[in-house]
Amino acid sequence: MPDRRVLVTGASGFVGWHTLAPLAELGYDVHAVARHPRPDDLTDVTLTWHVADLLDPAGRAALIAAIEPTHLLHAAWSLEPGQYAESPANLDWVAASIELVRAFRLAGGRRLVSVGTCFEYEHGRSPILHETSPLRPATVYGSAKQSLLIALEALARATGLSAAWARLFYLYGPREDRRRLVGDIASSVLEGREVATSAGLARRDYMFVADAGAALAALLESDVVGPVNVATGTAPPVRELVELVASIAGNPGLVRYGARPSPANDPPEIRADISRLASEVGWSAFTPRELAVSRTVAWWRSRSPVALP
Amino acid sequence: MPDRRVLVTGASGFVGWHTLAPLAELGYDVHAVARHPRPDDLTDVTLTWHVADLLDPAGRAALIAAIEPTHLLHAAWSLEPGQYAESPANLDWVAASIELVRAFRLAGGRRLVSVGTCFEYEHGRSPILHETSPLRPATVYGSAKQSLLIALEALARATGLSAAWARLFYLYGPREDRRRLVGDIASSVLEGREVATSAGLARRDYMFVADAGAALAALLESDVVGPVNVATGTAPPVRELVELVASIAGNPGLVRYGARPSPANDPPEIRADISRLASEVGWSAFTPRELAVSRTVAWWRSRSPVALP
Repeated sequence: MPDRRVLVTGASGFVGWHTLAPLAELGYDVHAVARHPRPDDLTDVTLTWHVADLLDPAGRAALIAAIEPTHLLHAAWSLEPGQYAESPANLDWVAASIELVRAFRLAGGRRLVSVGTCFEYEHGRSPILHETSPLRPATVYGSAKQSLLIALEALARATGLSAAWARLFYLYGPREDRRRLVGDIASSVLEGREVATSAGLARRDYMFVADAGAALAALLESDVVGPVNVATGTAPPVRELVELVASIAGNPGLVRYGARPSPANDPPEIRADISRLASEVGWSAFTPRELAVSRTVAWWRSRSPVALP
Repeated sequence: MPDRRVLVTGASGFVGWHTLAPLAELGYDVHAVARHPRPDDLTDVTLTWHVADLLDPAGRAALIAAIEPTHLLHAAWSLEPGQYAESPANLDWVAASIELVRAFRLAGGRRLVSVGTCFEYEHGRSPILHETSPLRPATVYGSAKQSLLIALEALARATGLSAAWARLFYLYGPREDRRRLVGDIASSVLEGREVATSAGLARRDYMFVADAGAALAALLESDVVGPVNVATGTAPPVRELVELVASIAGNPGLVRYGARPSPANDPPEIRADISRLASEVGWSAFTPRELAVSRTVAWWRSRSPVALP
């Protein structure tokens, strides 16, 4: 199928990795690129792995020339937990992403899905965020994504590229960094350690990352253009998710709620309007939360020394 | 004065060239870069000329490493008349500009002025445009500039760079392309040819390009950050400017008003609020319009075969 050859960037990352199996299932000839060799946990997906640094202009050009992808799912970025929100590296990714997409289009590429973020939106005004809600990023990361969105929409207009922008909200699941919320809770509880969290009263739209991967693949397959929220459309208190994770991990008593302060100016609720995803893309194959958390904890169990009571 | 070493990009262009003498007068060690060799009409300015293509990553890196500028006045862009508004090359300049500024900052650069445009603003809602007026570019060019502004503000925040963004409005003066309004009128009338224009009823904020160059230099010298309108704050009907140009060029009867249609959806008035430029930057050294037009026509006369009656 030379007709549908997709290049996935950030393929060893949290989001990118989870798009690979869904894309292969949709019949794409999948080409994955990351700075690292093919991960060990991809044994059952048929794809071609490429090692390249997309921040290197020569690496980018050679990659596009070698693959000549018809489709591009651009998930690569620098997302070091605790560092990325205010890092100047975000701007390196804006420039590299524009140049990557420009090269992709010049080589005949037709369809693009890039990964955006709910942190492009102004938070705290309305709890429900629609694709047309006002943008007002509070971080360098959010601003960089907004800058890239504007650039890619202009590039799409100037060149006739079909381009969608997937705004991801909060994520959890296998392969998460343990410095992030669910990774921290799951790994700590499995290792029998107490773990401090905020009171967990804020409502957040948390999506199972495997669902996000499947939704991104469906978005690529569609001809929907512009921003599309990729989320669940629900936002229970974070404490419910934490309790479920700790419970399935076997020791909910290890979580110390309120032992960490909530972030200053934390909005009470951040939730996506997902009508575009549901009605235009037509994707709604959500994994039930209990099952999603069970799979998440099982993944952490496969990696952690299991805590003995 | 190694303390104030400015790199001017787009130095052979319409705007960049006009910043060179004012910067030298302010005491900067001026380094100019363009793809072309030093122009013949720079004999009386002390500066160092560099030939480089800023769209080439290696060229950019070598340039910054060689100069180590403390200040950057970034005027380079692709502005081919009739082509640039919808060209994908605008996006090449977004990426190249981000990478240029990133390299500038990493090499110790402290102060940036980049050139933006009134075409970032939403037009048609209010005739007077303030720096905080809503942005809604109608062209790929305007969107690319908006994208770059957001990226550079994020980069400034992430790295502590002092960065201003000069929103230029309409310009005329020596070294203009003859495919632009005043260049067309002046060169045609001097050559004794009829020239077709619209009725010229729209009100536009036209600035003498030498004043724009001086204002940019003053902005660089200031510590004002963020967007700053660089314009006159007045917007007489365009016909007044055209009549003055044609009159000083010696034959106002050659202009055929209304022989060209006005652009569709042409806003009746586009005018800058220049209170930031006046009160924060403290620049207001406008050349009187008659004198500015006389200098413009004199420049065209020095280049054109003079029309004989």
